[in-house]
Amino acid sequence: MNHTALLPGSFSPITLGHSSIVDKILPLFDKVIIGIGVNSQKSHWLSIEDRKHLCELVFKSSPKISCTFFNGLTSEFCRANNIKYIVRGVRSFTDFEYEYQISQTNKQLAPELTTILLPADSHLIHVQSTTIFDIIKYGGDTSSFLHPQVRDFLHTKINNRS
Amino acid sequence: MNHTALLPGSFSPITLGHSSIVDKILPLFDKVIIGIGVNSQKSHWLSIEDRKHLCELVFKSSPKISCTFFNGLTSEFCRANNIKYIVRGVRSFTDFEYEYQISQTNKQLAPELTTILLPADSHLIHVQSTTIFDIIKYGGDTSSFLHPQVRDFLHTKINNRS
Amino acid sequence: MNHTALLPGSFSPITLGHSSIVDKILPLFDKVIIGIGVNSQKSHWLSIEDRKHLCELVFKSSPKISCTFFNGLTSEFCRANNIKYIVRGVRSFTDFEYEYQISQTNKQLAPELTTILLPADSHLIHVQSTTIFDIIKYGGDTSSFLHPQVRDFLHTKINNRS
Amino acid sequence: MNHTALLPGSFSPITLGHSSIVDKILPLFDKVIIGIGVNSQKSHWLSIEDRKHLCELVFKSSPKISCTFFNGLTSEFCRANNIKYIVRGVRSFTDFEYEYQISQTNKQLAPELTTILLPADSHLIHVQSTTIFDIIKYGGDTSSFLHPQVRDFLHTKINNRS
Amino acid sequence: MNHTALLPGSFSPITLGHSSIVDKILPLFDKVIIGIGVNSQKSHWLSIEDRKHLCELVFKSSPKISCTFFNGLTSEFCRANNIKYIVRGVRSFTDFEYEYQISQTNKQLAPELTTILLPADSHLIHVQSTTIFDIIKYGGDTSSFLHPQVRDFLHTKINNRS
Amino acid sequence: MNHTALLPGSFSPITLGHSSIVDKILPLFDKVIIGIGVNSQKSHWLSIEDRKHLCELVFKSSPKISCTFFNGLTSEFCRANNIKYIVRGVRSFTDFEYEYQISQTNKQLAPELTTILLPADSHLIHVQSTTIFDIIKYGGDTSSFLHPQVRDFLHTKINNRS
Repeated sequence: MNHTALLPGSFSPITLGHSSIVDKILPLFDKVIIGIGVNSQKSHWLSIEDRKHLCELVFKSSPKISCTFFNGLTSEFCRANNIKYIVRGVRSFTDFEYEYQISQTNKQLAPELTTILLPADSHLIHVQSTTIFDIIKYGGDTSSFLHPQVRDFLHTKINNRS
Repeated sequence: MNHTALLPGSFSPITLGHSSIVDKILPLFDKVIIGIGVNSQKSHWLSIEDRKHLCELVFKSSPKISCTFFNGLTSEFCRANNIKYIVRGVRSFTDFEYEYQISQTNKQLAPELTTILLPADSHLIHVQSTTIFDIIKYGGDTSSFLHPQVRDFLHTKINNRS
Repeated sequence: MNHTALLPGSFSPITLGHSSIVDKILPLFDKVIIGIGVNSQKSHWLSIEDRKHLCELVFKSSPKISCTFFNGLTSEFCRANNIKYIVRGVRSFTDFEYEYQISQTNKQLAPELTTILLPADSHLIHVQSTTIFDIIKYGGDTSSFLHPQVRDFLHTKINNRS
Repeated sequence: MNHTALLPGSFSPITLGHSSIVDKILPLFDKVIIGIGVNSQKSHWLSIEDRKHLCELVFKSSPKISCTFFNGLTSEFCRANNIKYIVRGVRSFTDFEYEYQISQTNKQLAPELTTILLPADSHLIHVQSTTIFDIIKYGGDTSSFLHPQVRDFLHTKINNRS
Repeated sequence: MNHTALLPGSFSPITLGHSSIVDKILPLFDKVIIGIGVNSQKSHWLSIEDRKHLCELVFKSSPKISCTFFNGLTSEFCRANNIKYIVRGVRSFTDFEYEYQISQTNKQLAPELTTILLPADSHLIHVQSTTIFDIIKYGGDTSSFLHPQVRDFLHTKINNRS
Repeated sequence: MNHTALLPGSFSPITLGHSSIVDKILPLFDKVIIGIGVNSQKSHWLSIEDRKHLCELVFKSSPKISCTFFNGLTSEFCRANNIKYIVRGVRSFTDFEYEYQISQTNKQLAPELTTILLPADSHLIHVQSTTIFDIIKYGGDTSSFLHPQVRDFLHTKINNRS
């Protein structure tokens, strides 16, 4: 049988935390889809095109991984793409509570779905999207959070903006 | 003595979770007031008139239950209406923390007030206002979350919108 | 209809926190039963007889309140005594999680049961059975935690012991 | 490549919650090992032989699943058996915190290990070992928690004891 | 050596909770800087000038305390001002989680930084900025939350507004 | 003025986490007392003499630090030794809740006491006393948790035991 996992998220931007999660589950799946949510109510400092571009940069040498936009219900997206597993990293209690509630909603809408949670490595638990923006903007060091190619892209973008 | 309970909330929309809480405490009170908050800073996808209409639909056969808007301090509303008990459902830790802090504020402003928390039934813990909107919008099944009459109203409304 | 509430616990010893909870819910019920659990796996520094004696001391002027031992399943005790409401104080997150799980077990064993949680007043959130023992033993002041008659009893008992 | 998952636990007794977790991850692995910990400091009301017997009863028709005792460090057991994935169900915040800390310890001792957490289905979140013992002992209904063959075994055992 | 502590926050407005924290740590430091964050994404009902004015009112008789705006990375501000200690009050679990993550980010950006968390006194745990606004607006009593001079300022301001 | 901090704990054994906390607060105090609790109800695999010996080994070159047993109420010990500050590391939510409650008890018994909580560095959050024992017993690597001199002592002790 063919197993596909969805890693949904905003990826604003993709971090070492995300790719660490993909690396861990990749051996178990035939295909991993990076699903970049486009209907989130959160405002993002990165356009969805930039977010997808950075995901593709990071995973370009992995033929089992593809990056795609998705909107609408996660459960419908999974059914349409024959996905049975959703994977999410969990850094904190608030994360856990949120993921738990979402997993139960997905379960109710699509009982065949399984949500897999992976505890973030402890040296990455504090990496957050808005923090990263601030660190780059004010000249902090992001090398422990971000892939080099993502870092280069963002430093250029943010410094040109101001 | 006459006992009145206030169930304050945004009711955006009323769910099976809310009416389950009302059912549980109704025998203990002479009157239960569904207090639809109108000064909340949250943006809602349902107007306050629609929210009140749906509450009234759900509770129309219960003479002990009334639905009303309220704004301002909960403690002042309670004093003005001779209410000594505030009732809230709790689904999660974040809920609990929020309710705990609000209960202590109310206690300090009006020491005669008692806050009663009811644990949500475990099959309803994941029902959230924004989730419901998405599920209806993208064609998911809401029958385990919503009363039939609420479901009909919302399906019509959301489908006409788009 | 006749409404009875059960306040189950170890009451080792009864504190101002317990009686504050009873005071708050007493107007809603015809009868409140203080249920002193005798099959708890926790070891206690107070015998169950002493614990019951102290509860009776505290509530002796309240005809609606009775104190009793109970063992076995809470849900069976409630059924045998026609109790529909279980009341518990909640001081903390760990408390909340424990109470939530117990309430769901009770709900599954006896669907007619409702668990009511009351947030402890913030100045009492740190009162714990083992702490009280230590405070008395080492001469600390317990007047903000304990009823005078409980305090007298325990001071005598603990000082005579050593 | 051959993928093996370890589901460590006390299985005192195995519940529908455990087998639900195994069912969810089984398609991803070539082999799943039910690892019954024998060096836990918790006292159990079921002998390790009974616990293993019940696991084998439940999984006897699944050739990919084996049941075994293990003691010592989980990370060493995994290395000795070429296991890269540890799977655990998570019912609550306290569970999550515990699992998170254990996963980080295992990661530090054996960086090649990945811990996968599966949120327990919400109707099973309140199933706990000691609760099950009490429910059986006092005649409650365990059919929503336990497999029929486990239930039969335990009812006989506990009723004969008293 | 000279020790300086930074108490960063939005101080919207300064409360008895904040000054209680300053009082507790003041003996340990030669200088305490009240750092009023101006780049926060939160919208505030008080201008930063008003917030600074109220902090200065409260601390005007303490020569060791100064009030200043700051924006950008906390870690950069600390380096520029030779600050090694950041102090924050913690009222709740959500607070703790947030502070924990921020402390780890700061640690990574500036390893010489130490974050000190002080548990808020239990009678102040429910004081929140938006709550205070509502209480003043609707005529509630703020004397247990606010310094008299802050109260006077805000009552005048809010009542003139409407 | 002379400032003394108490770091109370079981130190079973002292870890890099403990000394990291001492290092961070040492500049703020004239004296730091490592208070090894002898009346804890927890059973320990290390005698209190061994625990004190290991603390002294670790801190022997720091004249401002002393190691001592203490029993009874922390608040009484602080009064007797003119200590105004208690320092504790916090690794997790459960830790935080426990520390919060203890800090409020101490505050009530001795209002002049301030409790300072320091978030554990994220790479040390999973270090626990019982885990350490198991890791040594089963031959795991403790170099990221323990000082070399503590490691040597414990490896010898535990290997001689079995």
